[in-house]
Amino acid sequence: MSAPLQETKIRSASKEVVLGGMHRFCIIGERINPTGRRIFQDQLRAGDLSAIERDVKAQVEGGADVLDVNMGVPLTDEAELLAKAVTMIQSLTDLPICIDSSVVEALEAGLSAYEGRALVNSITAEDERMEQILPLVKKYDAAVIALPNDVDEIPMEPDKRLMLVEKIVRVATQEYGIALEDIVIDPLAMPIGADTTNGLATLETMRRIRDTYGLNMTCGSSNVSFGMPGRHTLNGTFLSMAMTAGLTSAIMDARTPEVVSTVKATDLLLGHDEWGSEWIMRHRQAQKAAQEAAAAVT
Amino acid sequence: MSAPLQETKIRSASKEVVLGGMHRFCIIGERINPTGRRIFQDQLRAGDLSAIERDVKAQVEGGADVLDVNMGVPLTDEAELLAKAVTMIQSLTDLPICIDSSVVEALEAGLSAYEGRALVNSITAEDERMEQILPLVKKYDAAVIALPNDVDEIPMEPDKRLMLVEKIVRVATQEYGIALEDIVIDPLAMPIGADTTNGLATLETMRRIRDTYGLNMTCGSSNVSFGMPGRHTLNGTFLSMAMTAGLTSAIMDARTPEVVSTVKATDLLLGHDEWGSEWIMRHRQAQKAAQEAAAAVT
Repeated sequence: MSAPLQETKIRSASKEVVLGGMHRFCIIGERINPTGRRIFQDQLRAGDLSAIERDVKAQVEGGADVLDVNMGVPLTDEAELLAKAVTMIQSLTDLPICIDSSVVEALEAGLSAYEGRALVNSITAEDERMEQILPLVKKYDAAVIALPNDVDEIPMEPDKRLMLVEKIVRVATQEYGIALEDIVIDPLAMPIGADTTNGLATLETMRRIRDTYGLNMTCGSSNVSFGMPGRHTLNGTFLSMAMTAGLTSAIMDARTPEVVSTVKATDLLLGHDEWGSEWIMRHRQAQKAAQEAAAAVT
Repeated sequence: MSAPLQETKIRSASKEVVLGGMHRFCIIGERINPTGRRIFQDQLRAGDLSAIERDVKAQVEGGADVLDVNMGVPLTDEAELLAKAVTMIQSLTDLPICIDSSVVEALEAGLSAYEGRALVNSITAEDERMEQILPLVKKYDAAVIALPNDVDEIPMEPDKRLMLVEKIVRVATQEYGIALEDIVIDPLAMPIGADTTNGLATLETMRRIRDTYGLNMTCGSSNVSFGMPGRHTLNGTFLSMAMTAGLTSAIMDARTPEVVSTVKATDLLLGHDEWGSEWIMRHRQAQKAAQEAAAAVT
């Protein structure tokens, strides 16, 4: 017997998104992040948050259900910046937010500014991270993304990852009173280019996490194709396989229609898109956009 | 414990293709078939087999590993036509052939003309079909595709389908001495547009056939998207999910690069493409073709 499937509820002031069960896959738009974007970093450092508006618009239009917000800019007060960004983004969209930082103070500032029920990104199985962040998750009634790695290593073997998931679940539920449904595991999708057995190991890990705990899962899907050609096809295909194995959300760039389409097709084939209405609507919108583009040319 | 994975070996005079185990997915090119093609039917009726050459070329270039050959033209001697087509195709390509007919005499004529070890398409769980065709499969040392439906119905419930698979396996191995590895099940992928639970039922059926028997499987993947928009994306996505559940081949049109690419990406992610060499080669060929096309324009 498999464990019952958990449902993770996150909310903005006016909109609820549910991960898991028979709900559609949750696309967590990943682009609101200055990592590796020098111009955006300079703007943020100068207190100019206007570029965020464009990124939010693009992710929403691409089909994001939730927005991941990271303000990790070196040499800034990340806590202040993240709080400001959260408030600003909530004025632009009603999508719930995934508050993303490696800095504990920034997570707290973001949570404190946020209206609704946030997703926190992230803890690991390291004792220190759990001690610092789980009390905040509890205090602000949030859900949390947890990575099954510890101080020593990112284990590849499904057995070891499952042991770390077991530790996370035990500590979070028993020591901090976090509900099982509010723990979202990121099973660490590793590049297939480094080792072609990585895909199977990740899929097995996902299947076992679903069957053992019924937990929701997320991952950064673009990692899988790192160093390989044809990345969009690999990323989309991986998501489809992973959804079949229990993945219920991903932190991904919603601006890539090929990948979003594959996710929507998988939702339909898994019975998560009743009557196929989402799939058919998406196709009609694409047709309409193509017709408008053609009309604009002539 | 799951059953060991079977390997089905089929051959032309000079080339062997293995389905299953850790081998790459087997693309059975489906286009050499006059069903629904009036001009092709008229040509064949007049004894003109020249159009076959173009279809063979297109399937081979698209990446077919095996060719499905069906010569079901009303008001012709299908047996004679199929035997001729098999001989002609074997002069054009070294790919093994899947001999496809609902007429027993045509299957026998095709098998008799074939050089190598063929795949026979197909039997059902109906007693009469098994009695007529399994002796031929044994006599010509072929492998056979079997559909889990009987006289009364095409059952949708995985339990019922598994019972029919059990019957097919029992009769074929015990009464006709066919090896388990030479039975390839087509678990009947039904249109998702008719009922959005069809996808999950098919995937569960596949998983159970793999885990219980380790049998190879095939399906006509384009069936799944019948009546829906965005068929290529749905077909490719379904194949990827089905491969994750144990599907090891499909009868499909190899001329659709989107679907073939998704199959190759899934092979890589399942660890069936060591070092990713097939994936990288495919990408390089596509790049080269695009460059040549661009050069031809300027």
